[in-house]
Amino acid sequence: MRILVSNDDGIMAPGIQALALALATEHEVTVVAPDRERSATGHALTLHKPLRVEKVSLGGSIKAAYAVNGTPSDCVKIANGPLMPEGIDAVFSGINRGPNLGTDVIYSGTVSAALEGTILGIPSVALSLASFSDLGYEKAAAFALELARKLSDPAHKLPAKVLLNVNYPAIEAEDVVGVRITRQGERRYGESFEIRTDPRGKTYYWLAGEVIEAEEAPDTDVTAIRDNYISVTPIHYDMTYHPLRQELEGWDILPRPAGKTLL
Amino acid sequence: MRILVSNDDGIMAPGIQALALALATEHEVTVVAPDRERSATGHALTLHKPLRVEKVSLGGSIKAAYAVNGTPSDCVKIANGPLMPEGIDAVFSGINRGPNLGTDVIYSGTVSAALEGTILGIPSVALSLASFSDLGYEKAAAFALELARKLSDPAHKLPAKVLLNVNYPAIEAEDVVGVRITRQGERRYGESFEIRTDPRGKTYYWLAGEVIEAEEAPDTDVTAIRDNYISVTPIHYDMTYHPLRQELEGWDILPRPAGKTLL
Repeated sequence: MRILVSNDDGIMAPGIQALALALATEHEVTVVAPDRERSATGHALTLHKPLRVEKVSLGGSIKAAYAVNGTPSDCVKIANGPLMPEGIDAVFSGINRGPNLGTDVIYSGTVSAALEGTILGIPSVALSLASFSDLGYEKAAAFALELARKLSDPAHKLPAKVLLNVNYPAIEAEDVVGVRITRQGERRYGESFEIRTDPRGKTYYWLAGEVIEAEEAPDTDVTAIRDNYISVTPIHYDMTYHPLRQELEGWDILPRPAGKTLL
Repeated sequence: MRILVSNDDGIMAPGIQALALALATEHEVTVVAPDRERSATGHALTLHKPLRVEKVSLGGSIKAAYAVNGTPSDCVKIANGPLMPEGIDAVFSGINRGPNLGTDVIYSGTVSAALEGTILGIPSVALSLASFSDLGYEKAAAFALELARKLSDPAHKLPAKVLLNVNYPAIEAEDVVGVRITRQGERRYGESFEIRTDPRGKTYYWLAGEVIEAEEAPDTDVTAIRDNYISVTPIHYDMTYHPLRQELEGWDILPRPAGKTLL
């Protein structure tokens, strides 16, 4: 396959290098990634300034690598146009330094790159190492290569609009129990702002907060990682909450009086 | 209700002023919004620099207004902490200049502010005027006030994790046919990058692209706006695509050989 590799930790991060090198052993890999860290950027786009592209060298049998002064979504869009005119068979985003579990998914630049691939109609995978240490990228990259083998088999097509969000547990390889197909869990943060005073006497605020260790259902991504499983969650970008549609009809919002305008 | 009003067009945009003034006629309204335009920021957070808050005056019977040098998500988080310690009963985000239909939702800063409210457990609404002209904010704001009346009635509780994404058609008030409860449509862009040369002879890229007028199902947000309806789409942030879970089990990704490690 012709694979695009991107991420949100930046092109020099160890996770993207491990991922690209592993995939390049069996596929044609092009790397297009932000020139610096773009964590927690969500699904942002750069509309109001020009994008610059710089060719870099990552070694191995990687076909080409480009650093872009933009977001993960920018990288996938620009790869799909000028940088990979021959087309893209799959997008792999990661390997992120740190988990993307539960509500993390909403903020995640790693997931947003894969989401962008999905919107463009390309089978896409987001990969994260569930730890902020740098240990374990090689094992997670080997798993990515397994997934690429599956995806290159026509029997394993992803439906339109759907991507795979993979989290790999940061533990010794022999302790990984297996793969669990999961759903998105909760994983909320207990947030607070630290209120400080700058050297000129003015107030500033800094976001702090830690994960709340809440009860999680057994089939979520959060629980899978806790249980030493690799979690694979199919996610899609149709966010419609269908169960409420009928109830909302009953709210009778702003019924139109006969022969009158609404408001 | 104690209502937080935010947006992604910035605190000086006409849409947020119309919204805040309309809601303040019946509710206690505090505005916390970015100090400048933050469109297409997705669900970004500011983690690596301090946030500054400046008190501004918006007139009417608005209780207080604050400009923040951050994203829409930052604004809702900081409102929920230091700026509105008495608590928030509802978040209204908008009124955005331009539609947030179909896949727009993924990139939308307007929706992200409402999403942040939902994650914090607060009933939330995102509002957009489906036009890039400034005409029609007052009518859309009057509709927001109608929705606030509904939400303040205990009979109309939004489920956890669910927000309302409202698009208002930019047409004469007497031409608005009514309210349609919708699902998220497609609305994709035909994207391209313009490749240009800067005054120093270096290449740069600029994202261009227009909406592809594709076939849309009759019950989507896109179709509702085309048919001159106000669209109300319930959306949630659990992006799990459940139909694929069972099929993925059958992929048999990386079965563990007895007594061996996985990779």
